[in-house]
Amino acid sequence: MKPDTICGIKPVAALFARRAEDVQRLFYLPAMREAAGPLCGVLAKARKPYRMVEAEELEKIAGTPHHSGVVAVARARVPAILDPTQPPRDKLLLVLDGIGNPHNLGAIARSAAFFGVKSLLIGEGIGHAMPSDAAYRTSEGGLEYLDLYRTRDLPRALMLMEPHYRTVAASLGREALPLAELPRDRPVALVLGNEENGVSEPVLAACRRQVRIAGSGRVQSLNVAQAAAVLLHALAP
Amino acid sequence: MKPDTICGIKPVAALFARRAEDVQRLFYLPAMREAAGPLCGVLAKARKPYRMVEAEELEKIAGTPHHSGVVAVARARVPAILDPTQPPRDKLLLVLDGIGNPHNLGAIARSAAFFGVKSLLIGEGIGHAMPSDAAYRTSEGGLEYLDLYRTRDLPRALMLMEPHYRTVAASLGREALPLAELPRDRPVALVLGNEENGVSEPVLAACRRQVRIAGSGRVQSLNVAQAAAVLLHALAP
Repeated sequence: MKPDTICGIKPVAALFARRAEDVQRLFYLPAMREAAGPLCGVLAKARKPYRMVEAEELEKIAGTPHHSGVVAVARARVPAILDPTQPPRDKLLLVLDGIGNPHNLGAIARSAAFFGVKSLLIGEGIGHAMPSDAAYRTSEGGLEYLDLYRTRDLPRALMLMEPHYRTVAASLGREALPLAELPRDRPVALVLGNEENGVSEPVLAACRRQVRIAGSGRVQSLNVAQAAAVLLHALAP
Repeated sequence: MKPDTICGIKPVAALFARRAEDVQRLFYLPAMREAAGPLCGVLAKARKPYRMVEAEELEKIAGTPHHSGVVAVARARVPAILDPTQPPRDKLLLVLDGIGNPHNLGAIARSAAFFGVKSLLIGEGIGHAMPSDAAYRTSEGGLEYLDLYRTRDLPRALMLMEPHYRTVAASLGREALPLAELPRDRPVALVLGNEENGVSEPVLAACRRQVRIAGSGRVQSLNVAQAAAVLLHALAP
């Protein structure tokens, strides 16, 4: 399995903080020598390689020019397969149904970690973004702070999680409750849908409630990463 | 002055809704023929040109492959120079101090329009994004629904606007009030800062208050476009 290539000092620092044992190698530009120092110390103790390199080589290692001067190669992190009868017991579980853009996945993970969300469940499917180098970069370390789960049958998973969670889909539909009216007496599994098409029909049908963010009507909707931030801020523990 | 090149059916529809008189020409792919129909009708009445073109030509006209099949060329819209003694009298004025990425400008404008903000003030400076083709595209029409103002001296403008607005800078600093504690008895001029460095020192010094979004501490901050969405949702009229 291809290892994770984690770029940027904050994502790399979070990687070291959360799963240093997965780190295999570290590379950095001369300009980042000081910032990389403590990380090199960790690797030296573990007898793992690290090396200062020039920009051209770092871009090759990173596979992108957006490496921000520090790149760690780490054992790939694979989201656990969810057992929906034994889900994580959080106050707020974030569920993604078809986010396609890895930068949106990363931005949502950043906001989720910022607001103290602990677990992220991703419905697997064609075109659905899974944690990737781009997502790690955009998440600014946020992905490392989330327990990651996946499922191939999200409607079934949501129905089986009902004893533990009120399942709520973000929606633009008429049946959707304004955010302020959503009852807050039970833990919430909040489902966000695809950038263009929103939450899919089967997942919508499996959710007990729908929620919407009230707007002026001047533009139809928020970008999904912005909607995520508003919903997570309102519903976070 | 170079005209605006507005891409995508929603931004173009908003352009027609808000300043049809500025539209000079319209181009679209065969697949967008139906969606473009009503817009062609408007142009036919005004004796302005429109034309169905192939992908290669549209990409050339748009200057980007991200044209989503519809491109309008329009007279450039230039933000008005703000007279800070006669500012717009809104409940919430959005002020940008150094947003550099045009996609962030567009995303913030989309959220602002969604939440009913009427006016956007941009502090001019080197590297500060101004409305551009990329920003129009990302705003999904939101920029068209905002009255745009600019100023070269944002600290002075903020001080002169104090009779009309409580000036509030979004900040990660210790002096910043948690969002929930910000007094809501007066109209707010909300200042958002640069992606990396936040609100600049002179602007921070000119603001009466600072506000922050409470987080878990796991990641340092939200992306500015996400922070904007949370703040606008909380403070919008």
